[in-house]
Amino acid sequence: MDESDPPDFKKRIRESFRRQAAMRTIGAELTRVEPGTVEIELPFDAKLTQQHGLLHAGVISAALDAAGTYAGYSVIDPEASLLTIEFKVNLLSPGRGERFLFRGEVTKPGTTIIVSDGRAYAVRPDGPAKLIASVTGTMMVVRGREGIEG
Amino acid sequence: MDESDPPDFKKRIRESFRRQAAMRTIGAELTRVEPGTVEIELPFDAKLTQQHGLLHAGVISAALDAAGTYAGYSVIDPEASLLTIEFKVNLLSPGRGERFLFRGEVTKPGTTIIVSDGRAYAVRPDGPAKLIASVTGTMMVVRGREGIEG
Amino acid sequence: MDESDPPDFKKRIRESFRRQAAMRTIGAELTRVEPGTVEIELPFDAKLTQQHGLLHAGVISAALDAAGTYAGYSVIDPEASLLTIEFKVNLLSPGRGERFLFRGEVTKPGTTIIVSDGRAYAVRPDGPAKLIASVTGTMMVVRGREGIEG
Amino acid sequence: MDESDPPDFKKRIRESFRRQAAMRTIGAELTRVEPGTVEIELPFDAKLTQQHGLLHAGVISAALDAAGTYAGYSVIDPEASLLTIEFKVNLLSPGRGERFLFRGEVTKPGTTIIVSDGRAYAVRPDGPAKLIASVTGTMMVVRGREGIEG
Repeated sequence: MDESDPPDFKKRIRESFRRQAAMRTIGAELTRVEPGTVEIELPFDAKLTQQHGLLHAGVISAALDAAGTYAGYSVIDPEASLLTIEFKVNLLSPGRGERFLFRGEVTKPGTTIIVSDGRAYAVRPDGPAKLIASVTGTMMVVRGREGIEG
Repeated sequence: MDESDPPDFKKRIRESFRRQAAMRTIGAELTRVEPGTVEIELPFDAKLTQQHGLLHAGVISAALDAAGTYAGYSVIDPEASLLTIEFKVNLLSPGRGERFLFRGEVTKPGTTIIVSDGRAYAVRPDGPAKLIASVTGTMMVVRGREGIEG
Repeated sequence: MDESDPPDFKKRIRESFRRQAAMRTIGAELTRVEPGTVEIELPFDAKLTQQHGLLHAGVISAALDAAGTYAGYSVIDPEASLLTIEFKVNLLSPGRGERFLFRGEVTKPGTTIIVSDGRAYAVRPDGPAKLIASVTGTMMVVRGREGIEG
Repeated sequence: MDESDPPDFKKRIRESFRRQAAMRTIGAELTRVEPGTVEIELPFDAKLTQQHGLLHAGVISAALDAAGTYAGYSVIDPEASLLTIEFKVNLLSPGRGERFLFRGEVTKPGTTIIVSDGRAYAVRPDGPAKLIASVTGTMMVVRGREGIEG
């Protein structure tokens, strides 16, 4: 089987996501993996809130960073890995809702640097999704660095 | 007692921090509260890691955001509250260590907008602290908005 | 004539842009004004370069900031003005080209805070435009502040 | 003479700065070059203003980016060059004044990625300097890339 086969990058991403213990801790699931696009979903949980009972900006950032990073994994070769260098989050509306969707998309692929953009939504069963945050993140492609695999 | 008394803002900040369930979930403690400066500490926990076993960028962001926000709380009047509008995190070194320190400091106080800067360190018992991340965050002062108190 | 009439905001934006002496200095023109979207164009000029002869990141930022700010002007009431609080620029490809297009779009309108996103392109007569930079900017709506009008 | 000698990096930085035509266009001067720290100064000029007659955010960004980039040049080897990947500027106070100082400092040196922080001040002859902006920038070290030298 060709290593660049779509099912292969999907498998790599799913396995890597499973190793992100922090995603398990916040209850995040990987719900969509396509070339250049990854989605993560998260049900609201009172243990993830800030002082006003809203979803904590750090939790939003964690899920947006993961979505953007794994979108990046879909455009790199199978031996490489990614490290987030930096990201910027804009919190556009209060993190209020029962379920949240985080979509990461590759804006600029590259051999050394990859840039992704992402958006977070409060998903409502009875209405349109509400945009609650946006992110831009920069990642570095790493190869053969001890301890940084997958 | 004067409401602008230092012990008073310290009390407000400690109470608000206690309501941040996300801080409890990640095991963060508020260890220092001074005018314009707040520190948070966090022991390493395997449940907070990303795919390479390092402290997750989202956890670093959550603690840096909280440190910067509570630094901001120390320079606003007791009836006001703060909402993070945006922040940018630079991940400078891998989040490897047994214990982490997050320091937030007010760079620019204001009546509507407050800007804080922060740094995250891996604290080592036998050596100097290692800078692992920096943040700049922008907060909006909110007053009398339903559900946004303290 | 109704002040909220589209032609009216277009007029206000064009007049305000004309007062941005820095735009004249870099040779930027306002080429499109629609509700929520503004475009600025700039021919390459050797006086705008960095050390490698490419368009300077600061010039890209100046035009992206102006495009995003004026996109914001299209969604505020005529008496208000906007001040940029912060922005983040990602330089995605070298600023090489004969002509550049900067598009700013409102991502989140608001009564106090407005967030816009923008993209910069090198426009080529004989091929597709090349994405060279992206920006996210946060603006504060100001009213009745001395010296801050239009 | 040893190539890592301080006078040598100072010379390289001064020569590279001189090639930044955009710095000449805005009237910026390189006033201080030390290991890890660079300062640029700029007199106010009406041709550099935004719509309210204040120093344009893009001009502030251009000078902060240059200061941060050249601070980075002081910690890389003589054959390497730097490209700004991204930066974030916070505009803390209106750009009002007769003269401005921009200081860039290396926060994290590295073989591939360098991060610098900077601050912009309105310098007053009769009082303390006023902080008007802060920046964090990320640069990539490039070697042997055609057209990217010095």
